[in-house]
Amino acid sequence: MSSQKLQTLKGFRDFYPEDMAFQSWLYKNIKEVSESFGFQEYEGPILEPLDLYAAKSGEELVKKQAFTLKDKSNKLLALRPEMTPTLARMVAKKEGSLTFPIKWFTYGRRFRYETPQKGRGREFFQWDIDILGSENPLTDAEIIQIAATFYKKVGLTPSMVKIKINDRVFLQEKLASLGILKEKTFSIFKTIDKKNKVNAKEFEEMLNDSDLSKIQTDKLLSLLADKNSYKDSPWLVEIMKAVEKMGVSEYVEFDSTIVRGLDYYTRTVLEGWDIKGVFRSIWGGGRYDNLTMAVGGKTKIPGVGFAMGDMVLKELLITNNKYPKLQISKTQVLVTVFNSDLLSKSIDVSRKLRGSGINTEIYPEDSIRLDKQLKYADKKGIPYVVIIGPEEIETKTITLKNLKTKEQTKTSFENLVSLVK
Amino acid sequence: MSSQKLQTLKGFRDFYPEDMAFQSWLYKNIKEVSESFGFQEYEGPILEPLDLYAAKSGEELVKKQAFTLKDKSNKLLALRPEMTPTLARMVAKKEGSLTFPIKWFTYGRRFRYETPQKGRGREFFQWDIDILGSENPLTDAEIIQIAATFYKKVGLTPSMVKIKINDRVFLQEKLASLGILKEKTFSIFKTIDKKNKVNAKEFEEMLNDSDLSKIQTDKLLSLLADKNSYKDSPWLVEIMKAVEKMGVSEYVEFDSTIVRGLDYYTRTVLEGWDIKGVFRSIWGGGRYDNLTMAVGGKTKIPGVGFAMGDMVLKELLITNNKYPKLQISKTQVLVTVFNSDLLSKSIDVSRKLRGSGINTEIYPEDSIRLDKQLKYADKKGIPYVVIIGPEEIETKTITLKNLKTKEQTKTSFENLVSLVK
Repeated sequence: MSSQKLQTLKGFRDFYPEDMAFQSWLYKNIKEVSESFGFQEYEGPILEPLDLYAAKSGEELVKKQAFTLKDKSNKLLALRPEMTPTLARMVAKKEGSLTFPIKWFTYGRRFRYETPQKGRGREFFQWDIDILGSENPLTDAEIIQIAATFYKKVGLTPSMVKIKINDRVFLQEKLASLGILKEKTFSIFKTIDKKNKVNAKEFEEMLNDSDLSKIQTDKLLSLLADKNSYKDSPWLVEIMKAVEKMGVSEYVEFDSTIVRGLDYYTRTVLEGWDIKGVFRSIWGGGRYDNLTMAVGGKTKIPGVGFAMGDMVLKELLITNNKYPKLQISKTQVLVTVFNSDLLSKSIDVSRKLRGSGINTEIYPEDSIRLDKQLKYADKKGIPYVVIIGPEEIETKTITLKNLKTKEQTKTSFENLVSLVK
Repeated sequence: MSSQKLQTLKGFRDFYPEDMAFQSWLYKNIKEVSESFGFQEYEGPILEPLDLYAAKSGEELVKKQAFTLKDKSNKLLALRPEMTPTLARMVAKKEGSLTFPIKWFTYGRRFRYETPQKGRGREFFQWDIDILGSENPLTDAEIIQIAATFYKKVGLTPSMVKIKINDRVFLQEKLASLGILKEKTFSIFKTIDKKNKVNAKEFEEMLNDSDLSKIQTDKLLSLLADKNSYKDSPWLVEIMKAVEKMGVSEYVEFDSTIVRGLDYYTRTVLEGWDIKGVFRSIWGGGRYDNLTMAVGGKTKIPGVGFAMGDMVLKELLITNNKYPKLQISKTQVLVTVFNSDLLSKSIDVSRKLRGSGINTEIYPEDSIRLDKQLKYADKKGIPYVVIIGPEEIETKTITLKNLKTKEQTKTSFENLVSLVK
């Protein structure tokens, strides 16, 4: 066991090459899917004024979960717990010069000071993808289509994952129709948000504690259980129709208990669900039509998007037996060094191989036995080894050894390149 | 002008798609060069215990420039000002199971609480590349070769940039030969490190203040001016010979005034210099043979590497007229939406185009005039536009418009794909 001193901070991770290979694979897929839909990549600072999150992201995220620090003028800063406020700030800043609607994505670090558990750390990576500048439900549908397309790409099927959707405006209207006052809507939302974390009895008690009458509680419970009530929401009907046309409806499910914890969502709310593993919420998103103004913008720029984290995705792929086969070493050839006299020959061949587009490592010692160098290549998973000894010099050849088949051939440099490629 | 509220923190940056395109270009080149030499990518946490840097990175970096915060148990943490201590910690942690020598690289954020200026921010990105587990000067030479290969790749020539090298052991021996006591070496190093920031007279005064005799000062000055004194260092001679064999000697220059500010360097020290812009130091590196033990490892694992920052590289490319032509939008086709009745057709064609590997955006509204949609494509630099109107439906065709040439063709879907590709 390594000493305490060598550990990362609680909830933080080291990415050794084998871990990084997964990160690169994930990022590559995210980038490809995002760009296939015409989205452009952006990024922002990791540190922002705490103000940016206050009152917009919701109390839990800001007061309990933010990693905060003070700068030298005692201003309170936060390691970004989420990306959307930064995105809104960036868009608001250039609202006069951007071409709307904008379609942007990013993949980067986020920080939350919470208890680390499986699939949840204090530092994690998140894919954020958003469309700003359109109030058309078609954009909400496209955001869902992108999530589903990503799922397809990485091998996650509708029997493993679902995307649940709801409409906060619709839910609010339904609550009003039950005689629930507007000023109570928000606290009822918070209660509904907890429905999937408690059992039926506990949930009923929570509703009773919210000052609802028995009749209101009963009606609300039957509303929340109704899988077809979305048909009363023209907004959701539009989204459902579009999602159908987009060929991803198998992934999508209406669920009126989905409200999301973030305060800034104004209409559509989305949640990714893990079905096969533990049936639970794994990522979220929604429509936020007032956020750019809330962070200081002058004009209303409606937006919609989602954020999906790396840790939960990794879990999901493992549980569903879809964790990718990763190429941890990308080196194609190890050029061994026979002795210090022949070092220049090895350096020369390495350069030429690289020049031909072949990833080539040279053994970084000139007095190590050849078998030890071969062992090094084998351990690192390098498929080919090149040997240039006195015999090769004399016959003006190069020895190429395939470490998998153990085949060994003497060849010219020109042939070497085509043999490896 | 946008309001104060919308600005980033001082020294921090937003990366809009046009800025991010540069970052992606830089990362791609870094990754390609690193992997062509057989290096594997790794990453680490952005937050580390401040302890990790204390006494190893040097007082300036830790006391003055670290962004620090306290966790809930009042432990002092730092946003990483550099990567090498994290790398050393990671290697030390797995010293028993890694296959040495390891060749690793990473590209990520670093933080320094300093006054922002051109080419220097409080949050920046750095490419770190290191070899651990070899004491052979060949590895130092390879690190130099990698920097030079990267320069070549991005178009920076030896008349624009130089890599200066020195040997701390050699310099220490030279100081000893001038009768300078061992315990004074380190403070003389610190003085020499400042040589390039002051004029000749000021430097002489600084040496006098260091308690050197007139004779010692004179001898030291002539030593520091001697471009050939490295020939007394077998270590440097070996590196210079290898660098010659590697074909990158044009980039490399010996300079005995290079010592670097970081305390953990034990032997070779490297510095990147900008010649054409302002003649100054722009990045650094060196050999650190005791660092893994200093952070808690059990065995001595020698290492060598460098770190190069994104901001200064960007400056360098601009000054030398080598800033790349960047592709900011990667969308190949915009599929317009004629009206809500024909929306499904547009959705369908978009899906099929994406399925054929073509990055395709659909206009996210179904009631916007066609000329406005074409303008959108033009502003975003999307080369092709697809139109599916009533006429196209009737003739079972698709209209493809090339926005550059203004050419317009009616074609089948199959042809569309090959026309765009």
